[in-house]
Amino acid sequence: MTSVTVWNEYRHEREDEEVAEVYPEGIHEVIAGFLGDRGFETRTATLDDPEHGLTESVLDGTDVLTWWGHEAHDEVADEVVERVRERVLGGMGLVVLHSGHFSKIFKRLMGTTCDLKYRERGETERLWVVEPGHPIADGIDEYVEVPEAEMYGERFDVPAPETLVFTSWFEGGEVFRSGCCYRRGAGKVFYFRPGHETYPIYRQPEIQRVVGNAVEWAAPVDGPEPSFGRSDPPEGA
Amino acid sequence: MTSVTVWNEYRHEREDEEVAEVYPEGIHEVIAGFLGDRGFETRTATLDDPEHGLTESVLDGTDVLTWWGHEAHDEVADEVVERVRERVLGGMGLVVLHSGHFSKIFKRLMGTTCDLKYRERGETERLWVVEPGHPIADGIDEYVEVPEAEMYGERFDVPAPETLVFTSWFEGGEVFRSGCCYRRGAGKVFYFRPGHETYPIYRQPEIQRVVGNAVEWAAPVDGPEPSFGRSDPPEGA
Amino acid sequence: MTSVTVWNEYRHEREDEEVAEVYPEGIHEVIAGFLGDRGFETRTATLDDPEHGLTESVLDGTDVLTWWGHEAHDEVADEVVERVRERVLGGMGLVVLHSGHFSKIFKRLMGTTCDLKYRERGETERLWVVEPGHPIADGIDEYVEVPEAEMYGERFDVPAPETLVFTSWFEGGEVFRSGCCYRRGAGKVFYFRPGHETYPIYRQPEIQRVVGNAVEWAAPVDGPEPSFGRSDPPEGA
Amino acid sequence: MTSVTVWNEYRHEREDEEVAEVYPEGIHEVIAGFLGDRGFETRTATLDDPEHGLTESVLDGTDVLTWWGHEAHDEVADEVVERVRERVLGGMGLVVLHSGHFSKIFKRLMGTTCDLKYRERGETERLWVVEPGHPIADGIDEYVEVPEAEMYGERFDVPAPETLVFTSWFEGGEVFRSGCCYRRGAGKVFYFRPGHETYPIYRQPEIQRVVGNAVEWAAPVDGPEPSFGRSDPPEGA
Repeated sequence: MTSVTVWNEYRHEREDEEVAEVYPEGIHEVIAGFLGDRGFETRTATLDDPEHGLTESVLDGTDVLTWWGHEAHDEVADEVVERVRERVLGGMGLVVLHSGHFSKIFKRLMGTTCDLKYRERGETERLWVVEPGHPIADGIDEYVEVPEAEMYGERFDVPAPETLVFTSWFEGGEVFRSGCCYRRGAGKVFYFRPGHETYPIYRQPEIQRVVGNAVEWAAPVDGPEPSFGRSDPPEGA
Repeated sequence: MTSVTVWNEYRHEREDEEVAEVYPEGIHEVIAGFLGDRGFETRTATLDDPEHGLTESVLDGTDVLTWWGHEAHDEVADEVVERVRERVLGGMGLVVLHSGHFSKIFKRLMGTTCDLKYRERGETERLWVVEPGHPIADGIDEYVEVPEAEMYGERFDVPAPETLVFTSWFEGGEVFRSGCCYRRGAGKVFYFRPGHETYPIYRQPEIQRVVGNAVEWAAPVDGPEPSFGRSDPPEGA
Repeated sequence: MTSVTVWNEYRHEREDEEVAEVYPEGIHEVIAGFLGDRGFETRTATLDDPEHGLTESVLDGTDVLTWWGHEAHDEVADEVVERVRERVLGGMGLVVLHSGHFSKIFKRLMGTTCDLKYRERGETERLWVVEPGHPIADGIDEYVEVPEAEMYGERFDVPAPETLVFTSWFEGGEVFRSGCCYRRGAGKVFYFRPGHETYPIYRQPEIQRVVGNAVEWAAPVDGPEPSFGRSDPPEGA
Repeated sequence: MTSVTVWNEYRHEREDEEVAEVYPEGIHEVIAGFLGDRGFETRTATLDDPEHGLTESVLDGTDVLTWWGHEAHDEVADEVVERVRERVLGGMGLVVLHSGHFSKIFKRLMGTTCDLKYRERGETERLWVVEPGHPIADGIDEYVEVPEAEMYGERFDVPAPETLVFTSWFEGGEVFRSGCCYRRGAGKVFYFRPGHETYPIYRQPEIQRVVGNAVEWAAPVDGPEPSFGRSDPPEGA
């Protein structure tokens, strides 16, 4: 059974009444809830836990990590970021959500600024499936409509994804590559755009479906562990 | 100097008054005109020319072929399609414009249906540059706005492009991968969406710039001509 | 349960004693055997069956089709090729084996010649995993060694794969992209190089493992069925 | 005219007699020499120059930077690495050579370990062109043979390149993705494998040709400078 650790910054929900009304239990609990309903083994971890809840032992038991952060990216310790990165390179899946585009871990794995345009006016977002045969689009219609969303617009400064699954349309005139698959080392990384803290987007069944699909897609496989460094020739061995 | 052959179906302009007003000289003359102004050596060819104007000798002198067709794709002889395909695989560039998505040559090179959604209501299109460092985006702003366009919407049934340069936003709510780079054999193929016959889109300087950039990008290089078939081993040779 | 149809030309085994000794039951029976052992529901189909065994009703019940052909590619009816192609575009998986690189269906889906270099001298092939986190590499070591193989060498005239999983080394000095993932329409296509008819390569457990992994990877998902053609705008609908 | 800065660690040549015999003038002088002969404007910079020779003003005048380093990657100041990275993201080309795979700048831009297998036994390397239509293969035969090379073998722990131009074969039984194109931000990055310090590889005309082609390919284009951050909607503006 795939084991998921749901990480959340968990500040907005405690500090901002508007957010607390949408996610009184914290975004992590909502995500862990619907992932658990789908049959994944879940646990949660937040910024203010010791080691941000991402100890070696927690990561030992984690197949896929989901990441939601926004206002406190800088408070995530570099040591923990490096620890998570090593796990991803070793095969752990990583699903980066919404404002997690600016998290240290995502920027570190991408190598770029991961910057973008944004605007908060409760605009309609329509996520079009551009790759209907991809497992992350399983059970999804031609598009997912989010009635009120923060806008994220291109240029999204990331390396081109290996597979682009969703592209978003926004009311105000922008587009965005909103579902992006990457491989880094032996690990798979999925960036999924929706999820602003002031809208109940993670309570939307299609969004839950995509996040669950992404977890399944990102789960580790039992591939070879490459050896590196000085090597004897296989020929004539 | 790069030599361009501008191919046009050239039927709408002769049969439809509305189109004739926009392009009295034919779309091919407009395209050949601005490509010539940029310094390319140009010639034109149309469906009703003998062999559609695409004789072996014309293709011998063609570095890049641009293709506009719409209502008469089926009238293009299979033999000519195959001739063009061989040239592309051999290194000739191909720039497929707008409704050319349904041309025999594009479908043949893609292997898929190349189908899409469409709607003709004179909607605003905004082509966002998603890859600002690509030569086809040279001299272009963050987006190109086409004031009145036919809508093309996803799912666009093509293989994912090697590089996606533009993504379009449409007023009615759709998105589209509107600038797509491919390699087929030794040849480069660029699909560029804008260009409906009832709007003067090819008179728009930014559109002209992109088409010219695409021609430059698609021009052949002097790479190796691969040998195929039974081969002696290079080792111990 | 994933349902696999194993297609084989099935001529060499009946016409050539050397091959008959290696695969007396036919290559298809061997492949269907190990896929069945892995838990897939399997059936076989061969060139000389009516409609090559690929009737609409067989394809209705096929999630993934594997394809081995060599000397009689031309005898496969165009109508059946088109039928299979439509299924792939609609989501059916396709695993193309060895000399299937020159099958009509593979060439049709790729759009290129699919040509390559070859040599038959029983050389060592070593398939290196270049993407260790890919599900097709599950359970595989850093490389798979095939003691005696026909050589296939670059340039392999295909579009660059979306994901390159294996690259082969050959004794005589060549390399080859030997495990290539593609998407075409909603379908997934995997090309896997090993499998010459005069060597018992499909009896090798690692090769069986890769073919089984490929079938799993290529199985259809329940993604959206895109609508095409004239469309009403979702905005203001 | 494209302006190239050739960066070299320049330690081996001064410390190791064997290397000094091969490159008495330093690797940077050899590279700058053949790039200058091709018509590029060149300058050199080395580790022991102030700010490693990579001041803001030098980078202001640099279109493409080539990078050779090996034993002293750690001595490159993080501040200079970050400065170079910002330039690449802003459009400067970067050509990373041989043991530069382990440079801070390459690892930072890739996000992965960039680790690999290696062996120094003077083995034959054969770099096969897998993408004959790519400008970096211009003027090159089907393969480039390096008579004596250090071996680098897969798994090469990098993100899959956007375009793979060369794949290497090594005498001892390994393969390697030896010519890899990436985009990071608006900048292009090319990794090119050959170039061990104890062999006169940069004196080989085909290798010089590839490095020159790579510089040309990596040169900046005049694309849009994306704006980031809070944005007004283009619609209704």
